[in-house]
Amino acid sequence: MDDTIAFYFDFISPFSYLAYQRLPAIAARHRLRISCRVINLAEAKLLAGNTGPTSRSQPLKRRYNQADKDRWARRYGVPIVNPTSYGPDRLNKGTFFAEDRGQTEAYIAYAWRKVWGEGGDMAGEAILRDVARHCGWDEAAFLAFTQSSAADQRYAAATRAAHERGVFGVPTMMIGEEMWWGNDRLDFLEEYLREHAAVAVR
Amino acid sequence: MDDTIAFYFDFISPFSYLAYQRLPAIAARHRLRISCRVINLAEAKLLAGNTGPTSRSQPLKRRYNQADKDRWARRYGVPIVNPTSYGPDRLNKGTFFAEDRGQTEAYIAYAWRKVWGEGGDMAGEAILRDVARHCGWDEAAFLAFTQSSAADQRYAAATRAAHERGVFGVPTMMIGEEMWWGNDRLDFLEEYLREHAAVAVR
Repeated sequence: MDDTIAFYFDFISPFSYLAYQRLPAIAARHRLRISCRVINLAEAKLLAGNTGPTSRSQPLKRRYNQADKDRWARRYGVPIVNPTSYGPDRLNKGTFFAEDRGQTEAYIAYAWRKVWGEGGDMAGEAILRDVARHCGWDEAAFLAFTQSSAADQRYAAATRAAHERGVFGVPTMMIGEEMWWGNDRLDFLEEYLREHAAVAVR
Repeated sequence: MDDTIAFYFDFISPFSYLAYQRLPAIAARHRLRISCRVINLAEAKLLAGNTGPTSRSQPLKRRYNQADKDRWARRYGVPIVNPTSYGPDRLNKGTFFAEDRGQTEAYIAYAWRKVWGEGGDMAGEAILRDVARHCGWDEAAFLAFTQSSAADQRYAAATRAAHERGVFGVPTMMIGEEMWWGNDRLDFLEEYLREHAAVAVR
């Protein structure tokens, strides 16, 4: 079995936040690495032919999703607060800056906490500066990177690569060709790992 | 606590089929009744502002959903086979015919088995005749009912009522104002029932 769980996410997704609260413990239990792969969810949905309105723009679904998120957060014992604004692109692209410095996990964990744990302003510069300080980076350099065409290109390429692998939503977890979509499928992922444990131990 | 679980479904929905394989045991354990309420899912989605393409028309989502359905069926130990055609309206409307005769559960259980357990032709008349025979009805009378304007009106009214209660998809389970959407939320439903057990016993 592949020793890596690919974790596809977009900071706009509360269920990606929730999944990330639990996934590291699962990976540790089974001695697997997590490879975090940021994508542009809106673009991945379009590539997959999902041209419908978002859940947030459907009042009944939005109301239900709120209750659902709260149930999961309570089950996991973690906070969840809606961001004061949406627009995840710069924060998403910042993940590549972290990757280049071997700080992906620190970046993601902190950004999740700020955005969904504390209900931050996802689209504003303040959160970008905050994360940069937390990671020990030059704020201006980081801000510039998130608006660079280099970052845009990596973002588009990452999204295309995810699409080509079959990703149509987030969070998506993959081990080899096996795929699970949604925080609510971590049970199936763990079931799979238990069943393949004999192979992994060899 | 309300002593009834409202179960909203549409025969087109494999996840409603799956939920119904498990829900009766949950209801029995907590001494609750199930009130089965058929709706027109396509119409309920439109009413809720969900104008996007179906999952079946999105290749990546369709492929994943197939794997996901298979995982659930395996977990529940039940068969699942894709119907040879889609078009659930007559079978859906037949539920009212069963209701009027106090045979809702027999009708639904058998129809689920034929459609998703055995992969029947959901839109054809053969399955309607089969279910009618199973329930001991006059086939012609039943077939006529599924095309009557009386049935159309009840179908539209049931869908509107569900929408007004907040239903935007199926399966949806409700107890009072509490709502769970999806076969994959039966765990939360059961958690709720355990937490309210003390009240129910009184």
